[in-house]
Amino acid sequence: MTTWPDVPADHPFGRDALPYGVMVTPAGSRIVVRYGDHALDLRAVADLEPDSAWARAWREPTLDAFLALGRRDWDAARVWLRDALADPGRQEEWAAYLTPVEQVSLALPFTVGDYVDCYASEHHATNVGRIFRPDGEALTPNWRHLPIGYHGRSQTVVVTGTDVIRPTGQRKPPTSDTPVFGPSVRLDIEAELGFVVGGPRTALGSRVSVDEADEHLFGVVLLNDWSARDIQAWEYVPLGPFLGKSFATSISGWVLPMAALSAARVPLPIQEPLPLPYLCGHAATGYDVHLEVAVNGSVVSRPEYAGLYWAPQQMLAHMTVNGATTGPGDLFGSGTISGPRADQRGSFLELSWNGTEPFALADGTTRTFLEDGDTVTLRAWAPGPTPGSRVGFGEVTGRVLPAR
Amino acid sequence: MTTWPDVPADHPFGRDALPYGVMVTPAGSRIVVRYGDHALDLRAVADLEPDSAWARAWREPTLDAFLALGRRDWDAARVWLRDALADPGRQEEWAAYLTPVEQVSLALPFTVGDYVDCYASEHHATNVGRIFRPDGEALTPNWRHLPIGYHGRSQTVVVTGTDVIRPTGQRKPPTSDTPVFGPSVRLDIEAELGFVVGGPRTALGSRVSVDEADEHLFGVVLLNDWSARDIQAWEYVPLGPFLGKSFATSISGWVLPMAALSAARVPLPIQEPLPLPYLCGHAATGYDVHLEVAVNGSVVSRPEYAGLYWAPQQMLAHMTVNGATTGPGDLFGSGTISGPRADQRGSFLELSWNGTEPFALADGTTRTFLEDGDTVTLRAWAPGPTPGSRVGFGEVTGRVLPAR
Repeated sequence: MTTWPDVPADHPFGRDALPYGVMVTPAGSRIVVRYGDHALDLRAVADLEPDSAWARAWREPTLDAFLALGRRDWDAARVWLRDALADPGRQEEWAAYLTPVEQVSLALPFTVGDYVDCYASEHHATNVGRIFRPDGEALTPNWRHLPIGYHGRSQTVVVTGTDVIRPTGQRKPPTSDTPVFGPSVRLDIEAELGFVVGGPRTALGSRVSVDEADEHLFGVVLLNDWSARDIQAWEYVPLGPFLGKSFATSISGWVLPMAALSAARVPLPIQEPLPLPYLCGHAATGYDVHLEVAVNGSVVSRPEYAGLYWAPQQMLAHMTVNGATTGPGDLFGSGTISGPRADQRGSFLELSWNGTEPFALADGTTRTFLEDGDTVTLRAWAPGPTPGSRVGFGEVTGRVLPAR
Repeated sequence: MTTWPDVPADHPFGRDALPYGVMVTPAGSRIVVRYGDHALDLRAVADLEPDSAWARAWREPTLDAFLALGRRDWDAARVWLRDALADPGRQEEWAAYLTPVEQVSLALPFTVGDYVDCYASEHHATNVGRIFRPDGEALTPNWRHLPIGYHGRSQTVVVTGTDVIRPTGQRKPPTSDTPVFGPSVRLDIEAELGFVVGGPRTALGSRVSVDEADEHLFGVVLLNDWSARDIQAWEYVPLGPFLGKSFATSISGWVLPMAALSAARVPLPIQEPLPLPYLCGHAATGYDVHLEVAVNGSVVSRPEYAGLYWAPQQMLAHMTVNGATTGPGDLFGSGTISGPRADQRGSFLELSWNGTEPFALADGTTRTFLEDGDTVTLRAWAPGPTPGSRVGFGEVTGRVLPAR
């Protein structure tokens, strides 16, 4: 029998984090919240609040209904949970609803609606520009005027722990006049945050302003945008990345509510030139999120989200300025997060400078791009509301399997 | 009381067409099939076949469950329907299940999964290349090696009859150093066919070959990929079209089963150089579909689908060669269909040669791009199995409303 755990005040999954997930059980999927090193079954506790829409949504097998509710319900649920977890009177009963996280199998937590990937890190975009256009301007002329983005494949967004099969496709080696076919030989990662949209679907033709965006932003996941650079390089002109990205995008199983990042807000970098008015608003903010990229257990990079040029509120405002709808389950990635230093780069493309500078792992081997059998894990934390405290993100991990 | 209609053998919606749709009624949405100038309520007749999975799927409010079944059930349902419609014994009872099509309000017939738009017309790609890169090669080097495509926004796929609000966004006039904000001044259409995928979702990491593709292709719709050329031109380098397309994509409410096009198969154009083996297969085929683009009732173009370079079977094989899954509700567009002649161009961009050659409507006005209040309607037909007979497509129409 589980006894109620003593979660220390400085635990990254204490009462200031409370990410939601979906746990697979033999009896079906159930919504859970992470508390310390356990998952608390929210379906089991939902009966205590039968009149609350948010508690009824906790009885569903995915977060879809909960996402659809909106800010007021998300906040009410969070207040109730934080109070309940601090209530000694509940602890004996609730101990039975806990599962140690190492025994939890997480499902994809919500049905992905439209998936968009942005390109919001100036250091990443600059590195990519320098690698591929060494004689030109590193940034395209539009980069400082709008948060560039494109749609990706929603149905291949997978949850942490899902193996990633090396993709096969066309690439054109520089030494060949024609493309060749086979497994990608330049398989890469992109370390990103993914923002999860909720609330009622907006009407076609309406917009979400920067200052309205927080009403629509439910939470954040870690996201690994696996990328086959050789397939991408051959296909992407003129209509953008397609098969170089669409084989898999991994997200963490825990969705951290935006509310958990309230103490992690930091100013954006100065945006110069000033963006057009529809991209301006007081709500546009950075987040002091510290990421870590590990390959086979060896930390190869520590990207800092805080320096990202464009805010998620600006990304959502841009994405809807043309009247496109957004609604529950829509997911948008920040784009690769890279910092100014070499050990802050969020992709192998940058870490190995397009394969020319192999980097070392702790086991003595080196990498330029991913090898079969490699496991990549992204982790992250942000400052919590108490000085010195941390709010944790659930990790996203995936292992590369050989091409079929 | 409706009497059973006498549908002439040469009617474009006779027993050789039988497109499916979803009719909105005060009591909810119901699956219907078009027969002649009526919609037949399939929910009402589903009780006759209680043991058939396809008839049970007809009781649902969308085509989703029917799409998920697969080729064997689609074929069985079609055989049953064709027989039943020719059976005089049913006609008195079934007359009560008919609604004249002019009284039918069509809903979006299925939930759109992943939406991809291709670029498969050589004449269109060549025209676009000549317009935007007058001094370079019209086709990019990859064009003859792979069916170029990109993901679009699934949640803004709308059904025929939906008004399209002129999108607002950033564009950079050639005379300006910085972008300006406002309604698109170069709003356009793209006349396309859209292919609707069905059958069980494929496994991550598996592929659909060219010769397996017909097992996954349920049917075809007419598709208008509304495009804001000015927004698109400023945003699309390097990651492809985004807000210039994502505000609306209109499809016909009637989904014509691929089986209805069996007599319309025509050879593909010669593909030179020969594509890589994964893009080859006997099933790759063209279709002799004749389209018509009308603006405010004035026919401005008659694109021919038959000349398209890439087959839908090749598009699906390409889309999944990297292991991406595909499943019911996935939708992919052919890309703009343009023929070799000026009166066969499928976009205003081409018809007005980037705005330099206004074209006339029947009312004496001229157009370069769309004006507020304009209504665009796409129609199409293909040869049926009887010499001289035609199989009709449901139209897709939309009216441009002023920017908000």
